[in-house]
Amino acid sequence: MACGGVEGGATRSVAVILNNDGTVLAKEEGLGTNHWLIGIEECCKRINDMITAAKRSAGLDLDQPLQSVGLSLSGAEKADVKEKIASTLTSTYPTLSDSYDVCTDTFGALASACDAAGVVLIAGTGSNCLLINPDSSTHNCGGWGHSIGDEGSAWWIANQAVRIVFQHQDGLTEAPADITWLKNKVYSFFEMENGFGILPHLYDDFKKPKFAQLCKIMATEGSDDPVVQHIFQQAGWYLGKHVRAVARHAHPSLLSAAGGLNIVCVGSVFKSWPLLKAGFLKGLYPSEDTSPVVSEFRLLFLTGTSAVGAARLGVLHGPTKKDLPLKHDGSDVTLLYEHTQ
Amino acid sequence: MACGGVEGGATRSVAVILNNDGTVLAKEEGLGTNHWLIGIEECCKRINDMITAAKRSAGLDLDQPLQSVGLSLSGAEKADVKEKIASTLTSTYPTLSDSYDVCTDTFGALASACDAAGVVLIAGTGSNCLLINPDSSTHNCGGWGHSIGDEGSAWWIANQAVRIVFQHQDGLTEAPADITWLKNKVYSFFEMENGFGILPHLYDDFKKPKFAQLCKIMATEGSDDPVVQHIFQQAGWYLGKHVRAVARHAHPSLLSAAGGLNIVCVGSVFKSWPLLKAGFLKGLYPSEDTSPVVSEFRLLFLTGTSAVGAARLGVLHGPTKKDLPLKHDGSDVTLLYEHTQ
Repeated sequence: MACGGVEGGATRSVAVILNNDGTVLAKEEGLGTNHWLIGIEECCKRINDMITAAKRSAGLDLDQPLQSVGLSLSGAEKADVKEKIASTLTSTYPTLSDSYDVCTDTFGALASACDAAGVVLIAGTGSNCLLINPDSSTHNCGGWGHSIGDEGSAWWIANQAVRIVFQHQDGLTEAPADITWLKNKVYSFFEMENGFGILPHLYDDFKKPKFAQLCKIMATEGSDDPVVQHIFQQAGWYLGKHVRAVARHAHPSLLSAAGGLNIVCVGSVFKSWPLLKAGFLKGLYPSEDTSPVVSEFRLLFLTGTSAVGAARLGVLHGPTKKDLPLKHDGSDVTLLYEHTQ
Repeated sequence: MACGGVEGGATRSVAVILNNDGTVLAKEEGLGTNHWLIGIEECCKRINDMITAAKRSAGLDLDQPLQSVGLSLSGAEKADVKEKIASTLTSTYPTLSDSYDVCTDTFGALASACDAAGVVLIAGTGSNCLLINPDSSTHNCGGWGHSIGDEGSAWWIANQAVRIVFQHQDGLTEAPADITWLKNKVYSFFEMENGFGILPHLYDDFKKPKFAQLCKIMATEGSDDPVVQHIFQQAGWYLGKHVRAVARHAHPSLLSAAGGLNIVCVGSVFKSWPLLKAGFLKGLYPSEDTSPVVSEFRLLFLTGTSAVGAARLGVLHGPTKKDLPLKHDGSDVTLLYEHTQ
C-alpha cells in the first residue's frame, strides 16, 4: 500500500507518494494551497490535482485510493478548517485516499527533518514558529498572517522595502542608508511610473507570492546594499525573537541535547542566512536577558520537502498507526549554523 | 442653479446640495465610497444614491442635472481613477450633474475649513496629510492605505491593539502594561473564543470600518487603560511626524501667519485629542531637530462635512469658475489646540 503527503505553502505546494518502507516513489509540484488566500474548495482541488499527478507518476491505479494522505498546510490551524478540508476531499474526490490527516505546515516540517521534538521556524512567503515538546505539547509564536504578523517572512521583507521607500519619499521616516538601489528595484519590479503605481499591488491585485519574488531579488541582487542588509537584519531579529518566545517553554531535555536545541528551518528566506545572522542572534540573545533562554542550538535547513513528514504523520494517524522510517538522502537537510553561547 | 458636493470616506460618506450663495439646501449620509474597497462601479452607484436623495430633500427636479458636483473622495489619488469616476457617473447617471470635479479627500476638507492654503491632516478610518501652498503646489505624506501606511488612523490604532495582544500572548514582544482590559475587549469585540477567531476578521471578512469601531470603543471605554493610552500616543506621534514631513515644504507665509500654521484636522480620531497630544508634540518636535520646523500652529477640527468644500471646488473647476463663499455657522470648525514652541 502507498501513502501520500502534501506540503502546502502560500506560493507553491509539493505532493509525494511513499511506499511502506518510506521510499519516495513520486513527487509533483503544484500551486499554493493556503485556504485563506484561495478558499477551501480551490485548496482541495489543487491537492487532488497534485496527488493524482503523483499517483500517475508512481504508476499507481488512479481508481485505487491511497491508504492515507497527510496534509501539512500553511493556514490550516483551526480544527473546523482541518475537518472541512478532510471532508471536502472525501466527498468530492472519493478515489483519492481512504484517510486524511491535516496539520499546519510546521508539523510536517519537523517530521521531515527529525524523529524527535524540537522547534520549527518557517520563513517562506509567510512566517511561523512552533515548539513541539517530547510529550507532544506545543507552543506557537506567530503564524497570524500578513495583517498582524508574518515578521521575518519574504512577504514582510518585501513589504518593509516598499514601506521604507515610501516613508523616505514622503519625508515621514529617514531610510537607514541611501535608498537609490532599492527604490529603483521596487519601481521596476512593480512596473511603477510613480508612487500611485504601488496601490493595485497592495489592494485590488494583492498577491503575497509577488512580494516573495521581490524578496528573492533583494537577496540575490541586493545583498551588498546597506538598506537591504538592514531589512534582512530586522527580519533575522524577529526570527530570533520567535525562537526565544517558544524556547522558554521547551522541555529541558531539548535544550540539553547534544548539539543543543534542534531548530528546523523551512522556507527560502533561510537561503540568505548570512544576511539574517547578526539580527537573529540579537533577537535570540537580547541585552536584557541576564541568562540566555537557549545556550546551544543548531539550525537545520530543510531543503527537501516537508511533504515527506506530512506523509509520515498521515500514516501515523491513519488506520495502521505505523511509524514510517525517515530516509535522509543527504540532500534534504543541511546544517546551516551551530551556536554555543 | 444648485451644485453638489460629496465627502467620501472608507466607512461613510456625505452629500450636500448648495445654492449659488453657498447656503446648504440639503445634506444626506451614505455608505463608504473608497473605490479601493468597493470598486469604481459601486462607488459611483453610492454617489448617485446620495446625491439623488439630497436633490430630493432640497426639492429639486431629479431629471434636471446639477450644474456641478465636486467629489472629495478618499482613495481617489490617481488621475485615471478620477477620470474613470467622472466618466462612469456621466454615462451611467446622465441626469445627475452637468460636470464633475474629483479630488482626494484632503482637498475638500481644506476648502471646507478655510479659504487659504494650509495643512490637512486626516485620521479617520485611514490617515493622510497634505500641504497646499498659496501657489497651489502640494506636498503629501501618507495616504498609502493600510498595507504600508495609515499610521495614526482608527484602523491603525485597532490593528496595533490586536498586534499587541497577540504578540504578548505569543511571548514575542512584551506589552507596555497589563493587557487584561484590552485583551478582553478585543476578544469580545470580535466574538473570539481563541486566537484563531481573529483570522476571518483579518482576511476573508476584512473590513476596515469594523476596526474603526474597535478604535472608537478603545477611545470611549478605555481612555484610562495604560495600553490604550500608549497606542494613542504612538498614533499621535505618527500624526505629528506627518505634519513635520509636509511642513518642511510650507511657504514661509503659512508658517508666519497670525496663529501660525493652520492644520485642518479631519476624522473621528481627533475626538481623542487629549490621548494623542503628548505623542503628537513628540512627533512634530523630535529631539534631533535643532530648530523646530513649525514654531507656531493651530489645529482646526473640521466637525462639519468636507462635502461643502468639495462642492466649492466643483463650482470653482466647473463651467462658471466661481468662488463660492464659505459660510461658517460656528459648529463646523472647532479650535482644537494652539501651540507656540
